[in-house]
Amino acid sequence: MPTPINERKLANAIRVLSFDAVQKANSGHPGAPMGMADIAEVLWRKFLKHNPADPNWHNRDRFVLSNGHGSMLIYSLLHLSGYDVSVDDLKGFRQLHSKTPGHPELGYTPGVETTTGPLGQGIANAVGFAIAEKTLAAQFNRDGHNVVDHHTYAFLGDGCLMEGISHEVCSLAGTLALGKLVFFYDDNGISIDGNVEGWFTDDTQARFESYGWQVIKVDGHDTDAITQATEQAIAETAKPSLIICKTTIGAGSPNKQGLAASHGAPLGDDEIALTRDALSWKHAPFELDDEIYEAWDAKAKGDVQQKNWDADFEAYKKAYPELAAELSRRLNGELPADFASQAQAYIQQTQEAGGDVASRKASQNAINSLQPLLPELLGGSADLAGSNLTLFKGAKGIEKDADGNYIYYGVREFGMTAIANGIALHGGFIPYVATFLMFMEYARNAVRMGALMKQRVIHVYTHDSIGLGEDGPTHQPVEQLTSLRTTPNLRTWRPCDATESASAWVEAIKSENNPSALIFSRQSLPHQARDSEQVANITKGGYVLAKEQGELQAIIIATGSEVGLAMEAYEALSANGVGVRVVSMPCAEIFVEQDDSYREAVLPADIRARVAVEAAHVDYWYKFVGLDGKVIGMTTYGESAPASDLYKEFGITTDAVVEAVNSLV
Amino acid sequence: MPTPINERKLANAIRVLSFDAVQKANSGHPGAPMGMADIAEVLWRKFLKHNPADPNWHNRDRFVLSNGHGSMLIYSLLHLSGYDVSVDDLKGFRQLHSKTPGHPELGYTPGVETTTGPLGQGIANAVGFAIAEKTLAAQFNRDGHNVVDHHTYAFLGDGCLMEGISHEVCSLAGTLALGKLVFFYDDNGISIDGNVEGWFTDDTQARFESYGWQVIKVDGHDTDAITQATEQAIAETAKPSLIICKTTIGAGSPNKQGLAASHGAPLGDDEIALTRDALSWKHAPFELDDEIYEAWDAKAKGDVQQKNWDADFEAYKKAYPELAAELSRRLNGELPADFASQAQAYIQQTQEAGGDVASRKASQNAINSLQPLLPELLGGSADLAGSNLTLFKGAKGIEKDADGNYIYYGVREFGMTAIANGIALHGGFIPYVATFLMFMEYARNAVRMGALMKQRVIHVYTHDSIGLGEDGPTHQPVEQLTSLRTTPNLRTWRPCDATESASAWVEAIKSENNPSALIFSRQSLPHQARDSEQVANITKGGYVLAKEQGELQAIIIATGSEVGLAMEAYEALSANGVGVRVVSMPCAEIFVEQDDSYREAVLPADIRARVAVEAAHVDYWYKFVGLDGKVIGMTTYGESAPASDLYKEFGITTDAVVEAVNSLV
Repeated sequence: MPTPINERKLANAIRVLSFDAVQKANSGHPGAPMGMADIAEVLWRKFLKHNPADPNWHNRDRFVLSNGHGSMLIYSLLHLSGYDVSVDDLKGFRQLHSKTPGHPELGYTPGVETTTGPLGQGIANAVGFAIAEKTLAAQFNRDGHNVVDHHTYAFLGDGCLMEGISHEVCSLAGTLALGKLVFFYDDNGISIDGNVEGWFTDDTQARFESYGWQVIKVDGHDTDAITQATEQAIAETAKPSLIICKTTIGAGSPNKQGLAASHGAPLGDDEIALTRDALSWKHAPFELDDEIYEAWDAKAKGDVQQKNWDADFEAYKKAYPELAAELSRRLNGELPADFASQAQAYIQQTQEAGGDVASRKASQNAINSLQPLLPELLGGSADLAGSNLTLFKGAKGIEKDADGNYIYYGVREFGMTAIANGIALHGGFIPYVATFLMFMEYARNAVRMGALMKQRVIHVYTHDSIGLGEDGPTHQPVEQLTSLRTTPNLRTWRPCDATESASAWVEAIKSENNPSALIFSRQSLPHQARDSEQVANITKGGYVLAKEQGELQAIIIATGSEVGLAMEAYEALSANGVGVRVVSMPCAEIFVEQDDSYREAVLPADIRARVAVEAAHVDYWYKFVGLDGKVIGMTTYGESAPASDLYKEFGITTDAVVEAVNSLV
Repeated sequence: MPTPINERKLANAIRVLSFDAVQKANSGHPGAPMGMADIAEVLWRKFLKHNPADPNWHNRDRFVLSNGHGSMLIYSLLHLSGYDVSVDDLKGFRQLHSKTPGHPELGYTPGVETTTGPLGQGIANAVGFAIAEKTLAAQFNRDGHNVVDHHTYAFLGDGCLMEGISHEVCSLAGTLALGKLVFFYDDNGISIDGNVEGWFTDDTQARFESYGWQVIKVDGHDTDAITQATEQAIAETAKPSLIICKTTIGAGSPNKQGLAASHGAPLGDDEIALTRDALSWKHAPFELDDEIYEAWDAKAKGDVQQKNWDADFEAYKKAYPELAAELSRRLNGELPADFASQAQAYIQQTQEAGGDVASRKASQNAINSLQPLLPELLGGSADLAGSNLTLFKGAKGIEKDADGNYIYYGVREFGMTAIANGIALHGGFIPYVATFLMFMEYARNAVRMGALMKQRVIHVYTHDSIGLGEDGPTHQPVEQLTSLRTTPNLRTWRPCDATESASAWVEAIKSENNPSALIFSRQSLPHQARDSEQVANITKGGYVLAKEQGELQAIIIATGSEVGLAMEAYEALSANGVGVRVVSMPCAEIFVEQDDSYREAVLPADIRARVAVEAAHVDYWYKFVGLDGKVIGMTTYGESAPASDLYKEFGITTDAVVEAVNSLV
C-alpha cells in the first residue's frame, strides 16, 4: 500500500509539471492544478476506469475538467497515466499546433473528452454524458449483461457554480436522479477578482441538496477523506453527488497559495524555486523519476479493464447478436444501411404530396418519418414541445426511474444545448434540441461550442421571424440568422416548404462532423414545384427554383417563408417580360462551398441586378447582392401584431420585391 | 374595511379582463393573470407606492412582471388603477401600434417599467432596480432625508426559476442583502409542457435560503396570508424576500384551471361563459361597474404619496441644495454642463500624447479621466476587473453593508448585463459592464433587450480577437462582432488606438438612447497621427485616416487592431505608386447613418477596388466591399498560440493586404 506521503509526492508531480509548463509558456493558470492535485491523484489512480492505450474505448469513465483554464492538470494526468502525451508535448503548452493548447480541446489531445474553458459548460457536458450513459444502458443492457456501465466525473470551480448554467443542469440532473454522476468542487474561495466572499456567498451544500443531490464536504488535500467521499458518492446510485473539497489555490507555493495571484499567471522563477524547496522537489523542470511514472502508469490496469469488457461484450454478442450489432453501429455513429434510400424516398414523397404547411409542422412530419429508422434520435425541447413540434409518435420522456427517447428539458435553453453537446460526445445518440429561434441566444455559446467540437447536434429553431406575429419584438428574430450563419462549422437551414424541410433534416442527420440549425416558421408556407434535379439540388444549399423566361436580367434570392413572396414576384415580373430567376437558398454556407461552375450557373457573376429577400437582418445578404443589389428585410426590431400586418408594416411584400427588381433592370 | 369577498371580486376583474382580451386577440396567455390575480390585488391595492398620473415619479415602487407572457395582468392593473390605459387600449391587445402589445414593452404603456418576456430577465432587471435604489440612496440620502426610498417588487413563474439567470441574480441579491427587493413566485406547478414534476423538482425554498433570502410560503389565493407575507417581507430589511405563492393556473376556469391548457391559448367562448358563471360575473366583456373602478383607483392615494415626497424633496433641497441639484440632474439623465468640453479636451490630449497602448488600457485611461466628471458611472465586470481593466481610481465595491460605485458581479455575464439594464432603467446611473468579448455570448439576449429598450448601458468587451493569443479558440471571438453590429439600436465601437478609444467612450456616454459595445484589444496597438478634422470625424463612425497619394485607385477599410496593418500596407503601396487610402471604421453602424455626401467622400461609389481587413468573420464586410472587393479576416475558429503566430497562421498580415490591393488595381 502506498503511504500518504507517497501520494502527496504523486500529486506534487502534477503541481510541478503544471507550474513549470505555465512558466515556460509564460501564460496559463497554475493555481487550479496545484489546488486540485490531491483530488486528481485519488480519482485518477484509485477510481477512474480508463485505458490510456485506447482513449476511445466506449465503456470508459468520462472525466471532464469544467474549470478548463486549469488545463495543465489534465495534461499532467494524461502524461503521467500513459496517454500519448509526451514531455515534449507538455513543453509545447499553449504553442501553435501542440497537443497542449491553452484550454483542453477535443481532438487535440488523446483523453480530452470535451473542450472546456467557457465556465459551467463542462459540467453541462458531464450531465449530458450521464444522461447518455443511463439512456443507452436502459436501451441495451440486459440481465447479467451491463455492456454500458460507466461513471461520469467532473471537476469544477467557483466560476462554474456562479454561472447560471450550473443551476439549469444540476437542477435537471437531480430531477433525473443521475446516480452515476460525481462532481468535485474545488472550493478554494478565490476567483479572478479575489476572495469570493464579496460576490459569492451561496451555501452550496444547501443549494445542491435543494436539487436532490447527495453532498459531501471534505478537506481537498486529505487523501483518505477524498477516497472515502468518492466511495460514498459511487455507493449512492439514486442521486448525483457533489463532493465539496475545501482546497487552497496554488497549494505548495509559499507566497502565492491561497491568493488570486496564483490563479491566472505564471508563479515566476523565484517563487518556483521556493515552491520546489517547499515541496522538497529535486528534479529539474519536466523531469520525473521512474518511481513516480510507475506509480501513475494506468496502462496495465486499463488494459485489464478493457479486456474484461471485451469478454463481457463477446458474451453479450452471443446472447443478443442483433442488439450487439445495433449498439456497435450506434457507438460508431453510422447510419442504418438503408437510411439514405429511405430518406430519399421520403423527400421525394413530400415533393409529390405537395400542400401548404408551416415548416415547423413539416419538421415534425420529417421527424415522424425518420425516427423509426433512427432509434438513436434523442429529441427534446426547452418546454416548448407543442410549439416547436418536436414530439414524435412513440416519444417517451426520460424520467427519474424510466428510460425514454425524449428529454423534457424544462425552460433551460443553455443547459439543454450544452447537455446535447455532451450526449453527442458520448456517442450512441443523435440529439436534437429545440426552442424558439430567439432563445437560441440564451444557448448561444453552447451552439458555438458544439460547432467548435464538430458535434452532430441538431438545433430545431421555430418561430423564425416577424411571421410569429403577436408575441412581438422580444420573440421576433432579426439578427439571429446572421449570427448562426457566421458560426464556423455550423450549417444553418431555413427551408421554404415541406420538401426543403425534409431535405434539411436528412442533411443534418448525415452531417457527421457538423451541427446544424434548422430554422422553421410558425406560419403556413406554400409548397413549391420542383423537378427531380431541383429536389436533388436542395442539398447544394442554393439552386434555381424558377428559371427566367427569356434572357436573364435579374435574380431574386430568398429563403424560407420569403420564397413564396419571391415566387409571386417572379410571376408578376415574368408576366411583364422581365427575365428574372428565383434562387432558393436554404443553406448559404453549403452553397458557397460548391464548385465555381455550379455557383456561376446559379448566380452568374455578370448579373448584378440582384434582390435578396428574407424577413431577417439585411446585412448578411450583401455578400450575395453586392454594392449594386438590394436587400428586402429587417433593420429594426419587430412589433406585436398579426403576422400579415407585420409583413406590410416592414415592407416585406411581393410588391416591394417587384419594385426592387424593376429599379435594377 | 373591504370584506374578503369584495377583494375576490376585485381580483376577478383582472381575471375577466384578461381572458376577454386574450379571446378577442385570439392569442395570448390567460393562465398567469388568472392565477396571480389575488396576489396582484393585494400588492397593488395595499402596498404599491405609485401615482398613475405620473408614471415617471422617480420615488415610486418598481413593479416587474418577469413572467411577461402574462401581460394582460399588468395591463388590467394599469387600467384599473387609473393609468392612461383605456378600455379601448385593452381591446387592442396584441394589435399593431396598440398600447397593449403581446408582452409588456417599455415605452408603449405608461407604468410598464421594463420589457419582459424572455424568461428570467425581468427578475434580473428587478435586482438592478434594487441595486440602483440602494446605491443611489447611499449616495444621496441624508439623516432625516430619505429622498430615495422605494421597494422593488417582481412577479415570476416556474420558467423564470428554471432559467440559469435566476441563479446568477438571486445569488448576488442575497450577497448584497437587497432588503427592499420582494419577489412573488407563482408556484402553479405548470409549464408549457405540462406538470413540472417531470423536469423541475427543486426545493425552491431551500434554494433561496441557500442564497441568503427570507422565504415565506403562502396560499396564493388567500388574501390575508398574502397580506401578512408581504408585511413580513417589507419588515425584513437585511435580506431580499421570496414569497412562494401556491396558486392554480387559470384559477376560475371550471375546466381549464390547473392545466397547461390555460397557459398560452384563449379559453374559448364556451369556457369563458362557464367561467363567468363560476365567478358570478354578470358584465359583458370590457364592462365593469363603478364600484370596482372606485375600489381600484389609485390616483388619489398616489397623488398624496407623490405630494408628500415633493414636500420632502423641498426640505432636502433647502438643506442640501447642491446634492438636490445633482440628484435631479442624474435622475434626468443629463450630463454635467462641462462634460462635453472636458471630454473633448481629453480626446485631444490623447491625440497629442500619442504612444502605443493596448486599447483595453486606453479604455481604462478614459474611464479614469471621465469618471471624476461623472459620478453616475456605475462600473463592473464579471470577475475580470484586472483583465478588462474596468477599475478606476477611487472605485469602491458595493457590498452588503456598504455603498460604492463599482459592482463585483462575479462570473455572471448574463445576470450582470440584465442587472445593468435594470440600473439604467431605474435612473441615476450610467452602468458599464465588462467581460471578454467571447462571453458577451453568455449575456447575449440581455444585450439585445437593452438595445430593444434603448437603454444607455455601456458594454466593455476586451480580448477581442485571435490577438488574445494563448487562451485559444474558446476565447477568441470570430463571429461576435457581426452579431453585435446587426443588433438594432446598439452601437459597436472597435477603436484602433487611444484617441479612438477615448472618442468611443465619450460617444457611448452621450448616447442617451442607445447602448454601446466598446471592443478593446488585449495587445498593444500603434498610435495613429490625425489632424483635428480627423479627430472630429471619429464620431462619424468612419473616416479617411490616410489620404491617397495621387489619384485614388483603391481603399483599405480597417478597424481596431488591424488599422495598424492597414497603415503599414498603405506605406508599402504608396511607395510603389498605388493611390490607396485607409478608412478607419470604428463604428460602421454610425457611418452608414451619415449623409450621402459624407459617405461618398469617404467611400466613393466608383472605387470598387476595396479591401476590408479585420481579425473577425469576413462576411460582415461585403456590405462595404461588394462582389468585387476582398476581405481579409477569419472564416474558421482560431488556435491557441502567441498572438503574432496566429496572425501569420490565419493570413491577417500587412503582406496579405498589399497583395489583395495589388490584385484589384
